Amino acid sequence: MVLKALLLEIQMRLPSFSRVCLGNLRHCWCQLIQIRHCPDQKLKIGVVLSGGQAPGGHNVISGIFDYLQDRAKGSILYGFRGGPAGIMKCKYIELTSEYIYPYRNQGGFDMIASGRDKIETPEQFKQAEETALKLELDGLVVIGGDDSNTNACLLAENFRAKNLKTRVIGCPKTIDGDLKCKEVPTSFGFDTACKIYAEMIGNVMIDARSTGKYYHFVRLMGRAASHITLECALQTHPNITIIGEEVQQLIAELNEILAHDTVDEGSLWKKKLTDQSLLLFEFLPQAIQEQLMLERDPHGNVQVAKIETEKMLIEMVETELEKRKQEGAYEGQFKGQSHFFGYEGRCGFPTNFDATYCYALGYGAGVLLHSGKTGLISSVGNLGASVEEWSVGGTALTSLMDVERRHGKFKPVIKKAMVELEGAPFKKFASLRDEWALKNRYTSPGPIQFSGPGSDAISHTLLLELGAQA
Amino acid sequence: MVLKALLLEIQMRLPSFSRVCLGNLRHCWCQLIQIRHCPDQKLKIGVVLSGGQAPGGHNVISGIFDYLQDRAKGSILYGFRGGPAGIMKCKYIELTSEYIYPYRNQGGFDMIASGRDKIETPEQFKQAEETALKLELDGLVVIGGDDSNTNACLLAENFRAKNLKTRVIGCPKTIDGDLKCKEVPTSFGFDTACKIYAEMIGNVMIDARSTGKYYHFVRLMGRAASHITLECALQTHPNITIIGEEVQQLIAELNEILAHDTVDEGSLWKKKLTDQSLLLFEFLPQAIQEQLMLERDPHGNVQVAKIETEKMLIEMVETELEKRKQEGAYEGQFKGQSHFFGYEGRCGFPTNFDATYCYALGYGAGVLLHSGKTGLISSVGNLGASVEEWSVGGTALTSLMDVERRHGKFKPVIKKAMVELEGAPFKKFASLRDEWALKNRYTSPGPIQFSGPGSDAISHTLLLELGAQA
Repeated sequence: MVLKALLLEIQMRLPSFSRVCLGNLRHCWCQLIQIRHCPDQKLKIGVVLSGGQAPGGHNVISGIFDYLQDRAKGSILYGFRGGPAGIMKCKYIELTSEYIYPYRNQGGFDMIASGRDKIETPEQFKQAEETALKLELDGLVVIGGDDSNTNACLLAENFRAKNLKTRVIGCPKTIDGDLKCKEVPTSFGFDTACKIYAEMIGNVMIDARSTGKYYHFVRLMGRAASHITLECALQTHPNITIIGEEVQQLIAELNEILAHDTVDEGSLWKKKLTDQSLLLFEFLPQAIQEQLMLERDPHGNVQVAKIETEKMLIEMVETELEKRKQEGAYEGQFKGQSHFFGYEGRCGFPTNFDATYCYALGYGAGVLLHSGKTGLISSVGNLGASVEEWSVGGTALTSLMDVERRHGKFKPVIKKAMVELEGAPFKKFASLRDEWALKNRYTSPGPIQFSGPGSDAISHTLLLELGAQA
Repeated sequence: MVLKALLLEIQMRLPSFSRVCLGNLRHCWCQLIQIRHCPDQKLKIGVVLSGGQAPGGHNVISGIFDYLQDRAKGSILYGFRGGPAGIMKCKYIELTSEYIYPYRNQGGFDMIASGRDKIETPEQFKQAEETALKLELDGLVVIGGDDSNTNACLLAENFRAKNLKTRVIGCPKTIDGDLKCKEVPTSFGFDTACKIYAEMIGNVMIDARSTGKYYHFVRLMGRAASHITLECALQTHPNITIIGEEVQQLIAELNEILAHDTVDEGSLWKKKLTDQSLLLFEFLPQAIQEQLMLERDPHGNVQVAKIETEKMLIEMVETELEKRKQEGAYEGQFKGQSHFFGYEGRCGFPTNFDATYCYALGYGAGVLLHSGKTGLISSVGNLGASVEEWSVGGTALTSLMDVERRHGKFKPVIKKAMVELEGAPFKKFASLRDEWALKNRYTSPGPIQFSGPGSDAISHTLLLELGAQA
């Protein structure tokens, strides 16, 4: 069940602005917003960073702050400290121009810090109400991922139900890139994190090509969705890339077959797999094939322990090659080197894209609150065009939501956007991977640049998704 | 015993040049070199990359090539494939303008690849002679670390003893930064590798400051010398930095005490430690203190297994804090997160400094060979000034050498430059670390930039060492 709701889109034209001169953006907004609200109104707005860090969070706050300075003089912006717990405990700081200045265009969430608490129980909602009343909040901006924006939506409903004046606006944050839909084309931080990981992967590739001594196995940060891995593959062209969603589909089909059919020696059962899954199955080494055909756990799922995949794969390759050596089928030397790139990517300096996108998200959140909107997520569209052509607005959080059964209860949640096997980014990857597998088409993109050629480039994923939409 | 020899220094003025326009350098050289040699002489030169990769190697080769194009038209440059083995097996490629072009300013050694073989035995020297004769080599440039440059020196001697016309020039390469002396102020690759590691460390620091969830423990690549760690500390200001040389000195003093004295309960023995070592000893957690006082191995050395130090330290802190918790002396929460930054730094795009420095090293090697010099290491001086003021020349490899006992024989070797505890970089670090320890002075330098402010900055280590010399 999907609850569709009103999509609000305020079309506005943003001028191009450089990282060092974000101020330019403001004047343009002024003219367009004049008609929508009373310029004399002073607002009290709170902002909170929720969950794991993503590059650009400081620019969202800078965007909100600058909007208030420009269009609602005398307004106050409170930064809640340490995530949602800061709202519940009313721990905050009043953000000033001087306080914000050193954090502009910087990575991390250290301006007001973040946290993973949730506002869920009736007592916690009550605490949030008390803070909203105490600070006389006109609005609250929640910068977070899928769960945090779900929370923002519930908070908006709750404040409205209690007749509080406090409006709530969400902002799409997560390096994982799994909070997106047509109106919210990407979450901030994804662009930067992928470019940092791609730099490291590219360096390791050149290292491999220079000596031929090691085979490198890289694991990247992320949860269920594999957008980061897919994007990094598109940027660097590794020999083999494992996309979780593809493996998941194969596993789902195998589960079905193992539950209802007999696995015959003649491999007739394989005909029940879809073409895509059969291709993948045949591509996997025999040891993994066998593991996938083993007994399921009590829930009918593959029993994969939470081990370090990159090290497991190295060991599996070692075992397989040793076997082949014994059989006289392999004479080479295999040395595996494992890497995990994770925390390095969450707090880097935002790319020009993330810096600009975040500032627009924040400025847009200011507009939405000033216009009296609530329960929306700040959305910036037309991202494939130059910044002057971007459109800014808000999308009803409910339109992103679905109902899931969690802990025995139906709950409205924002559905995680997984890598779609029919989507343009995966199809592009699938069309190239055979060539990459054998021909070493390594590409090393180098460090993120803030000026010069390519410094404003958007991710392959976003570019391909926008292209497919157009 | 140190063999001091003639220092040859050709003073030349280099014009400033950008990464994308290295060609400018050439015209300036021409005027200065005219008087030194016959411009009509055609040369046959070989070049080899030896040992682990370091960013900038391709620019050394580009510098040699451009020198030959400019000043000895019709010359040939051979690239030996896969390191010194390429010389012994006469595996080479003739380098052309088109072949070199895509590698200019790029990281890695993939243009001709590298290897770790050494030319050591009489048979191997014979093979090298055969190659030199077969290709009619006028010169050979060996791009490598301390061992490879030792090898270059022996090769130069050998070719001269055999009356071959082949001259040999070395170039100082190693990210470890342990190949340096007054005339060779730094080895190439050190600058880039440290900046890549410092970017990652800085990101992790901002991550730590944003959540306060983890204590991060970072291990960096390197052998005995700790220049990389010291440089990264100066760039990022971590709470605690372990400099191997300092620990080594403490261990050496402890070995002496344990061998000759009784370790009394009253700690009178500590008075035999130097002030520096006593300070360090007291600074260490008790568990490590105790480990240092344990029995020595048969050679009288501390028995430290080759384990992952960063993970060992996390476990030690966990154990200590658990003990304190039991005693009621600690109430906090400790979660350690380990990192190893290594291969990511060896093959990155060279910084502007390394790109320029390498090109000058290569161009200088061309000059030296054209002038008939042998047994020198290409040296670029006055690096603290703008590029126009750099001086270029050669230093006798023997002047860098010492005699060490290896495998039961006295052998001439280039002594590794360790971090000097009386040197300017370490003293700077020592003067600041107490403040860093408690006050979280984290600095995140961000990704390497190729244009804009700071893009031409040299390392703290080099800057401090040059300052101390001046």
